[in-house]
Amino acid sequence: MGLIVQKYGGTSVGSLERIQRVAGKIAQRYREGNRIAVVVSAMSGETDRLINLAKNLSPKPDSREMDVLVSTGEQVSVSLLAMALKDLGVPARSLLGHQICIYTDKSHTKARIHQIETGKIQQVLESGEVAVVAGFQGITEEKDITTLGRGGSDTSAVALAAVLKADVCEIYTDVDGVYTCDPNICSKARRLDRISYDEMLEMASLGAKVLQTRSVEFGKKYNVPILVKSTFTDEGGTLTTAEDEDMEKEVVSGITYDRNEARITLLGVQDRPGIAATVFSALADENINVDMIIQNSSADGKFADLSFTVTKTDSERALEIVRGKASILGARDVVGDTAIAKLSIVGVGMRSHAGVAARMFESLSQVGINIIMISTSEIKVSCVIDEKFLELGVRVLHDAFKLDEPGNSLEKN
Amino acid sequence: MGLIVQKYGGTSVGSLERIQRVAGKIAQRYREGNRIAVVVSAMSGETDRLINLAKNLSPKPDSREMDVLVSTGEQVSVSLLAMALKDLGVPARSLLGHQICIYTDKSHTKARIHQIETGKIQQVLESGEVAVVAGFQGITEEKDITTLGRGGSDTSAVALAAVLKADVCEIYTDVDGVYTCDPNICSKARRLDRISYDEMLEMASLGAKVLQTRSVEFGKKYNVPILVKSTFTDEGGTLTTAEDEDMEKEVVSGITYDRNEARITLLGVQDRPGIAATVFSALADENINVDMIIQNSSADGKFADLSFTVTKTDSERALEIVRGKASILGARDVVGDTAIAKLSIVGVGMRSHAGVAARMFESLSQVGINIIMISTSEIKVSCVIDEKFLELGVRVLHDAFKLDEPGNSLEKN
Repeated sequence: MGLIVQKYGGTSVGSLERIQRVAGKIAQRYREGNRIAVVVSAMSGETDRLINLAKNLSPKPDSREMDVLVSTGEQVSVSLLAMALKDLGVPARSLLGHQICIYTDKSHTKARIHQIETGKIQQVLESGEVAVVAGFQGITEEKDITTLGRGGSDTSAVALAAVLKADVCEIYTDVDGVYTCDPNICSKARRLDRISYDEMLEMASLGAKVLQTRSVEFGKKYNVPILVKSTFTDEGGTLTTAEDEDMEKEVVSGITYDRNEARITLLGVQDRPGIAATVFSALADENINVDMIIQNSSADGKFADLSFTVTKTDSERALEIVRGKASILGARDVVGDTAIAKLSIVGVGMRSHAGVAARMFESLSQVGINIIMISTSEIKVSCVIDEKFLELGVRVLHDAFKLDEPGNSLEKN
Repeated sequence: MGLIVQKYGGTSVGSLERIQRVAGKIAQRYREGNRIAVVVSAMSGETDRLINLAKNLSPKPDSREMDVLVSTGEQVSVSLLAMALKDLGVPARSLLGHQICIYTDKSHTKARIHQIETGKIQQVLESGEVAVVAGFQGITEEKDITTLGRGGSDTSAVALAAVLKADVCEIYTDVDGVYTCDPNICSKARRLDRISYDEMLEMASLGAKVLQTRSVEFGKKYNVPILVKSTFTDEGGTLTTAEDEDMEKEVVSGITYDRNEARITLLGVQDRPGIAATVFSALADENINVDMIIQNSSADGKFADLSFTVTKTDSERALEIVRGKASILGARDVVGDTAIAKLSIVGVGMRSHAGVAARMFESLSQVGINIIMISTSEIKVSCVIDEKFLELGVRVLHDAFKLDEPGNSLEKN
């Protein structure tokens, strides 16, 4: 018995039958004596359908109105789920962003939650009803509707769990947890029972699409245990929590990859202050996010090569912008490369274990994979490699760090 | 230059192209210097699609959640129309029931407007923006979403025009005005330039489906001129206003009909107080509306026949209920008849002209149409006849009252 926040993604409520099945799962937990708030996404495909309506109408749809439009997706699914719960005899009530008062900033289509009022939802929970909350949406102080960006319902759920001081936030999706690597690439992939917030943050931002990064930040900040489980089986699940001693025994927890990056290199730019600022301010002005940045000076210190990565979607535009600045920077040439991929290892154990990066580089080189760029943080090492070696690289690293065995450590080798 | 409230129905915004065309019409009026609030329905077919979702999910969908669900239809169309207006360079802002604060009672799926706050919408209009308001929806004091029933967007528009003290409320639909009778039945049907609130009220409640009855009540109460026009042509239109002298010259303004009634007769009930109360309380308890009621006593005053009409949809259920009471009432038999139709003439001129009803009965009898039931008010006469004579009856009355000529009157005959 406790206070549980659950979140069901678009696939989980993708049809009327699935909504009824989800209602059945909730009813069971409710009858066990739990108080339950459920956060629901739009039925799968619905958000895209609405976005396409707008794109077919308008060359550049107004972002305030876009939020009014797409937020209807969640409104439909909460009403249907509440109906289905009532049909099972479970008292339930749908609640929209403006009814609970989930306040966000004014950044339409990618708003951030500022504050959630708990009065209304507490009242619903205390009256014995299941609160069925529309994910992904909030309101500004002026009562304008906002949305939280792709995957925003994860953030709605974790933020709600935080303010309600819930015992757990359960994220139901179409996979049964977080794996050591993508099971579609590596058959030895193993589901992790537990993972730390920091590891999950790195995994999420490095390309593992299980949770929205922002939701993990909320989880970490407010110490909300986040359980990722499959809607369709009762088995498995991965719990994201604060670090503990057990976790540190694992040197590497997982391997992630991202195919959606492209590299741009300025060859032979003058090696003087202000070069990087000129390039990256110009990109920032166009709202282009840069991921990795590397600069190598030549031996004589006069010229340098500057490389960085952006998403493949932004790469054409980024190339144009940088080429426009090339003459000012005195660059010899600007070249782009989209046939790359980023391969990363993540693990809190790295902090206390030397030689992790070295083992990664060595393992890749043993199978002839050239490393194009490297970037590191306290708990991750990322390498940009030729895209065609990506699957090979994932499998080689999975073996090298013995990720198929729980409790792997360098000492064992 | 003035303050205009416009309403566009589902057919008018039924596709992206039509939304763009509507935006063009609004832009023109805006550029002429008018302040404009636009009330929009859901795109045609959308409300039915949503209702079917709920009906396929649940045997008896919860009415609170039904309103959360179907109100998304208008939310989609206001956001799209606001986008389209902005694309034309017209500042515009969508506003939902909870953003304006259109307060209603708690009767979900058929709520009545109690109060509309004008602060927010005035602010939008004064800032020079077109206010694009979601029709059909309101909120309760507890912020629950309500809807106003079929045709509710008409009522949203007229109520908004009333509180804003607009110069006119323009209702754009797929017909170009109110006709003397259904043009599909009678080729001589003539569009009326003007009609009084009382006549329009009778026409609406007698089966002419141009405006929701409740919207005309609002118009009458707050003296809002209501102009019904076609979205698709610039010609025509019918203005509903308070009566004036010209109107009274028209004895009969229009002929309406309703095929959706059924008659139930209790034969030989005891002629004592309380019989009618027993029957109609039992029907009211089941939420069945009764339209016409007629009772004939026998010559000896001991027995009576009691007839009434209900909608065809309710007739089976009503028959069951009445049959259940038949023995208590001492009725000899209870019979139902669904092959009937109601034919009505409407006109404020009836008040000052004798012989209107007589002419109606005479005209019908001349072509052999038997009158089954009669009901009258100050400005209308309704006859229930055999359904198969309906078209004939409409045409005969149209000729008898010379409705194809403006300014018809009995004196001319």
